[in-house]
Amino acid sequence: MQAYEKLKANFQRAGLLNEVDAVLHWDQAVMMPEGSAPMRAEQAAELSLVTHEILSDPALPDLFEAAAEELIRDANPWDLANLALMRREHAHAAAVPPDLVVAEQKAAAACEMRWRQARAEKNFQSLAPDLEKLLDLVREIGAAKSAALDLAPYDALMDQFEPGGRIEKIEPVFDELAAFLPDFLGDVLDVQASQEKPLQPSGPFPVEAQRRLGERMMGEFGFDFDRGRLDESHHPFCGGPMGDVRITTRYDEADFSSALLATIHETGHALYEINRPSDRSYQPVGLAGGMALHESQSLALEMQTARGLPFLTHAAPIIREAFGAAPGPEWEPENLSRLFSRVVPGFIRVEADEVTYPAHVILRTRLERAMIAGDLVVVDLPGAWNDGMQDLLGLTPPDDALGCLQDIHWPSGAFGYFPTYTMGAIAAAQFVAAARQSVPDLDGHIAAGDFAKLTNWMTVHVHSQGRLADTDEILTRAVGRPLDVGAYIVHLKTRYLN
Amino acid sequence: MQAYEKLKANFQRAGLLNEVDAVLHWDQAVMMPEGSAPMRAEQAAELSLVTHEILSDPALPDLFEAAAEELIRDANPWDLANLALMRREHAHAAAVPPDLVVAEQKAAAACEMRWRQARAEKNFQSLAPDLEKLLDLVREIGAAKSAALDLAPYDALMDQFEPGGRIEKIEPVFDELAAFLPDFLGDVLDVQASQEKPLQPSGPFPVEAQRRLGERMMGEFGFDFDRGRLDESHHPFCGGPMGDVRITTRYDEADFSSALLATIHETGHALYEINRPSDRSYQPVGLAGGMALHESQSLALEMQTARGLPFLTHAAPIIREAFGAAPGPEWEPENLSRLFSRVVPGFIRVEADEVTYPAHVILRTRLERAMIAGDLVVVDLPGAWNDGMQDLLGLTPPDDALGCLQDIHWPSGAFGYFPTYTMGAIAAAQFVAAARQSVPDLDGHIAAGDFAKLTNWMTVHVHSQGRLADTDEILTRAVGRPLDVGAYIVHLKTRYLN
Repeated sequence: MQAYEKLKANFQRAGLLNEVDAVLHWDQAVMMPEGSAPMRAEQAAELSLVTHEILSDPALPDLFEAAAEELIRDANPWDLANLALMRREHAHAAAVPPDLVVAEQKAAAACEMRWRQARAEKNFQSLAPDLEKLLDLVREIGAAKSAALDLAPYDALMDQFEPGGRIEKIEPVFDELAAFLPDFLGDVLDVQASQEKPLQPSGPFPVEAQRRLGERMMGEFGFDFDRGRLDESHHPFCGGPMGDVRITTRYDEADFSSALLATIHETGHALYEINRPSDRSYQPVGLAGGMALHESQSLALEMQTARGLPFLTHAAPIIREAFGAAPGPEWEPENLSRLFSRVVPGFIRVEADEVTYPAHVILRTRLERAMIAGDLVVVDLPGAWNDGMQDLLGLTPPDDALGCLQDIHWPSGAFGYFPTYTMGAIAAAQFVAAARQSVPDLDGHIAAGDFAKLTNWMTVHVHSQGRLADTDEILTRAVGRPLDVGAYIVHLKTRYLN
Repeated sequence: MQAYEKLKANFQRAGLLNEVDAVLHWDQAVMMPEGSAPMRAEQAAELSLVTHEILSDPALPDLFEAAAEELIRDANPWDLANLALMRREHAHAAAVPPDLVVAEQKAAAACEMRWRQARAEKNFQSLAPDLEKLLDLVREIGAAKSAALDLAPYDALMDQFEPGGRIEKIEPVFDELAAFLPDFLGDVLDVQASQEKPLQPSGPFPVEAQRRLGERMMGEFGFDFDRGRLDESHHPFCGGPMGDVRITTRYDEADFSSALLATIHETGHALYEINRPSDRSYQPVGLAGGMALHESQSLALEMQTARGLPFLTHAAPIIREAFGAAPGPEWEPENLSRLFSRVVPGFIRVEADEVTYPAHVILRTRLERAMIAGDLVVVDLPGAWNDGMQDLLGLTPPDDALGCLQDIHWPSGAFGYFPTYTMGAIAAAQFVAAARQSVPDLDGHIAAGDFAKLTNWMTVHVHSQGRLADTDEILTRAVGRPLDVGAYIVHLKTRYLN
């Protein structure tokens, strides 16, 4: 096992440095003063370069061959999967020359800074030159990875976030959803219009009380504060290095639900990171799966669980007491459940409900595919965006801040990421439906405040699997079929039309 | 300049990674949950290893030779100093095999964790085995560096923190101080006993008000919050990466002075980091000087300035108003000045006054020299410590938490660091005396709240010099002589016997 052990040592080094990078990223989003951004970009680029050197080492292919021989004798599936993932990581790294790695990183850092200003000023054209430059570099990377991995450029880029993700498999699933949703949305809006509006508890809701409530809920879902933190950032995320999982949220004193639901969402991501196979630490196979699986875990808690009646039967009095409010109809579980699942077509993806969210993703997927293919140039993006929003949701953004400037993904160089949000929503419905079939009275346990039945099921079927298999295979083993929109449609009909 | 440019590129890589390491260290002290310590130690060790590989690269010596040839033609002192520092950094790194680097790092991380527990339990013997193991590794490193650098082992270790620091130069200075202090301490205590005790403003002093006060003072001294932060940690420190200087303090609601003075102390360190030559970013010559110079900058603000009457003439009403207190004799500048310069022999170094502090350092310097020389074994440390405290300050610690367990330095592997505290106190007196000679009515400016005259003098004579010269040479250029106890003794007499 000499070659394989050597490989493991190399990939452990890269894995450790990736965790260092995770500290930098968390710090940048949560702690770093803005003026430090240019120097931090240099520091982070250097770290990426070191990792890239380890992963692109030309000595690796010979070790892969020797390791494959070694593993024939003792074909442990974890080691075989690990070797395959090592080859994949090497292929991704070796495809891109170091200069291009650094150039893309620096262009992304600069573009992201420009984007913050452009969004604040609602001025897309001030971003366009930086975004064009970045897109050129991303397309160059896509072309290089396309050749090395024998994938279409867009698939090669998506594969960075979603190993094994291929647009030809995803598109039919999205098409099915896209065919279902417009009529369904109409039905949901009709149902809502026929009912009384849910009541909005009135604030203010002090940040400190919101934070304590969020921490309590994290604890109830199994988050360990001796190995992780809750903080604030402009956009909620889950990050931090291995063994130190850190989530963030943001507080609105007028509406406690945004921070609470974001905290629960990120707790779903966190449980995945906490429960991935620790005996494969720092090896590729020990990582969480692709972003679709990751999002399935956050949405299983936020959308599938925390916005539903069973969870709120448990949580409503806790929430009310957290703010020292007197009992009242606005605090009834059913009212909160209707409030948290209110469908309102809007401009902003991160504020979208379950029913309209896929339209936001489908729009972005179309546009980024066109940009990578060279069929859409950056200066035409606002027009194409607004046409798409009109087409999909019947809305036209009044400005680009509510339109194509709203997301950080493209200005940070992430093309091929957006589809994973809706893949995750679909997979979440599949997982939760399977858990409900497998665990007797799952909703009863949730209503009683016992979430371990659900989270343990997820740990067994998802978290503990690391990257032993790709998204479709993990799904197939857990629920009997690959990504499939059926369970999601059942979930939507049950929640929104009953 | 091909070889020199290559060298600069290599050292820039190491410099960038050192800044990444600074983020990890800050995070570990300020943000990291305790349970994450073991994994963080692995991650940090890997980063050290990468930096060590860059600095110990066997290709460097040939480049040094070629660069020396190149620089003959255009002998810029910055580049010549930079090349000499590169050689020094390479010699330090190449002396120690990578396995030993990692072994020492991990032993230090484990020892530091054990120390936290041992100190809490006041149980030195539970630390002893880990500290012995760490000391063995540090001695091994000292021996290796001794051979490579042609220095005594203790000097070779000290050279890591204080480039050019040699115990044979420091000892006579310390001896002179040690000869002066005991009688002087007696005189000071007599004077204090003959006066009324200064009045203690009564709290509580809410943390939030203390934080705002600290931030205001930092701003008055020139700290830029767009490129730095103030946070809390168990021990105050100044850290963070280049361009993002972060200081910490700790708050006591019963006594505002500890946080305020610690904040001003760390601001002194921060100004050094902020004002070091940015056009030499990430090159060895662009770094701040050794720890003695660094400490001189913190003590110039804290001890020389903030505890003195001119500063407090300006600050006393600001402090009082920060806590919404009514005027009264306890808030008079003279009272606060006497309160902040009260001399009380005690067990704890970090709480010690200017007059007794050197005894703490002299004790530690003696003991760590004996440990490195093999003349003192770890299990005998508590006895030797207590004997020394009795000898130097006439006190015997009631337990090891108030004795040899109080400092983190040895359990974190830092031997040869302690002398720099008192070197810094001495140098601070030299710098401030020279600034007072050079700037007309310096104390008047300070009393008027204008600190720029003082800090600009420090920037010109210290901060902007980077590592162009060592401590003694920087001192000589700025004040006309190397490290010399005269100005310190004048300062002590002026402040404590007048």
